[in-house]
Amino acid sequence: MKKFLNQVDQMLTESLAGFATAHRELVQVQFEPTFVSRKQKAQNKVVLISGGGSGHEPLHAGYVGKGMLDAACPGQVFTSPTPDQMLAAAEAVHTDKGVLFIVKNYAGDVMNFEMAAEMLPFEHATVLTSDDCAVVNSTYTSGRRGVAGTVIVEKCVGSLAESGADLAACKALGDKINLRTSSIGVALTSCTVPAAGRPTFDITEAEIEMGVGIHGEPGRRREAMRAADAIVTDMVAAIVHDIEAKQLPGAGDILLLVNGLGATPLMELYLIYHAAAEQLTAKGYQVTRSLVGNYTTAIDMAGASITVCLLDQEILKHWDSPVHTAGLRWGC
Amino acid sequence: MKKFLNQVDQMLTESLAGFATAHRELVQVQFEPTFVSRKQKAQNKVVLISGGGSGHEPLHAGYVGKGMLDAACPGQVFTSPTPDQMLAAAEAVHTDKGVLFIVKNYAGDVMNFEMAAEMLPFEHATVLTSDDCAVVNSTYTSGRRGVAGTVIVEKCVGSLAESGADLAACKALGDKINLRTSSIGVALTSCTVPAAGRPTFDITEAEIEMGVGIHGEPGRRREAMRAADAIVTDMVAAIVHDIEAKQLPGAGDILLLVNGLGATPLMELYLIYHAAAEQLTAKGYQVTRSLVGNYTTAIDMAGASITVCLLDQEILKHWDSPVHTAGLRWGC
Repeated sequence: MKKFLNQVDQMLTESLAGFATAHRELVQVQFEPTFVSRKQKAQNKVVLISGGGSGHEPLHAGYVGKGMLDAACPGQVFTSPTPDQMLAAAEAVHTDKGVLFIVKNYAGDVMNFEMAAEMLPFEHATVLTSDDCAVVNSTYTSGRRGVAGTVIVEKCVGSLAESGADLAACKALGDKINLRTSSIGVALTSCTVPAAGRPTFDITEAEIEMGVGIHGEPGRRREAMRAADAIVTDMVAAIVHDIEAKQLPGAGDILLLVNGLGATPLMELYLIYHAAAEQLTAKGYQVTRSLVGNYTTAIDMAGASITVCLLDQEILKHWDSPVHTAGLRWGC
Repeated sequence: MKKFLNQVDQMLTESLAGFATAHRELVQVQFEPTFVSRKQKAQNKVVLISGGGSGHEPLHAGYVGKGMLDAACPGQVFTSPTPDQMLAAAEAVHTDKGVLFIVKNYAGDVMNFEMAAEMLPFEHATVLTSDDCAVVNSTYTSGRRGVAGTVIVEKCVGSLAESGADLAACKALGDKINLRTSSIGVALTSCTVPAAGRPTFDITEAEIEMGVGIHGEPGRRREAMRAADAIVTDMVAAIVHDIEAKQLPGAGDILLLVNGLGATPLMELYLIYHAAAEQLTAKGYQVTRSLVGNYTTAIDMAGASITVCLLDQEILKHWDSPVHTAGLRWGC
């Protein structure tokens, strides 16, 4: 394993310290318990707090800022944050309008956010994201995994919260977007967790892992490496099958997110986007909004995921509204 | 080699088509000759045209848009674009205020942009970037290589051009920034050029290439892998030596750019940033502006570069001004 680090157990602290310095006009970091929060504490709004294991950057600390999260609680790499982090974050950022936790559906995250919620002295609710249509139940998960669709939930609910909406409305929008969002990932290589020092799984030059999780969890099956268009065809088919099975209302306008898992060049991500957009258009969808880049990573995995969110006017409005974070920024 | 592609010779075309669709409110792409230009043609300003081999995304197409480039001419991967591309781009985007070419100092790029300049029927000038302090003369270069500092030149000169400044002023600012900017890169792994199908160079788990170029050109020396702080110490020392030798005016305010070469996670880039910012502060510099991420890549190389630009009021003003491109966006 070759990585830029000093000591494995100091890696997160040093990286967060760098993050906080590089974006000091936007965020601040507290340690022990560790959380990242906005530099300018928001007033009179539902506060949004997310978190999870590190290694998925810019998720979640990179989405702290105006129009998105109020705080993020990073655990060690691929390790859930602990309830004291969520409690300290909530204590620091809450106003009188309640706390919304946005949690990716992994057993450890769910358990620790639930424990924090039970101890929380403020009105609160939780949105669980589970957009990964690849598999039901996985290494760390009962049900479906939460992956890159979480970014869309955090962006849009962040916008609604900024407008002064109440806790129930924020939770309802988050749940709606999660229902209307479907993702699937594919790995060309494993990731390497620093503390483990070796790749999470073995994979040959001739293979891909279709439906891989963002921690390197097994997907649907190990398949033969093939042309990008053929890989994308299977990913788009899985997503469309998932979306159509839900018989959701909507005109077919979609947000298409092509997400890099860490080591895949932008040139390849745009090539995947090109194939996915053409195939989705041929199936009757209109790609109304697009996002291409590294938004929910799996450390240094070569691979990518495709996420489709079935838009409606409410989601579109909140997607387009201004956001100012380290990882997403427009309109300000 | 495992990459997301269909046929190697179609990779650039498909990727650019995806790029143009994903950012269709911002840019458009023309093929044969190939160039990317703004959707809204600018009026009454010096137009900025850059280009170079592909594989460094988001450089340069990702920097086309308001406040930065008017057009970018992408060659095949690590292959210079041809003069007909620059001529077609200039014909499409020019106004009556002249054309400024921004060219990284590689022999092929320099030659082809010079040939285009000779045939150009408009007033024109060229800024050559050569911020890489690692080596003088290299595989594809006489003199110093142009690397990630090019982003700072394109951003700031783009801002000045937007304000209506004339060609001489734009060239002067570009030359000034290039003089005040110093970079050095380090590779943990090689990159793999799709058409070659195998890594550009061999490197063991125990080695790093200090001073590597963005095409995998040899750097200063092959060194032992070691702690990130120690690697950064040598990189910062090289940059500070280079800057101090020039005895430039300035108060010591700097822009610090930590750039990923393609496969390095954000978590490691922020750790490098943390070390570099502390070391530069200890040497008397004030890190006034920061940028951390993948801005000038070397396909899928694991590695990073550090760039320092010695700010003055003029550069700072143009760095902070609004920009709206696929790769850099703020203030709009």
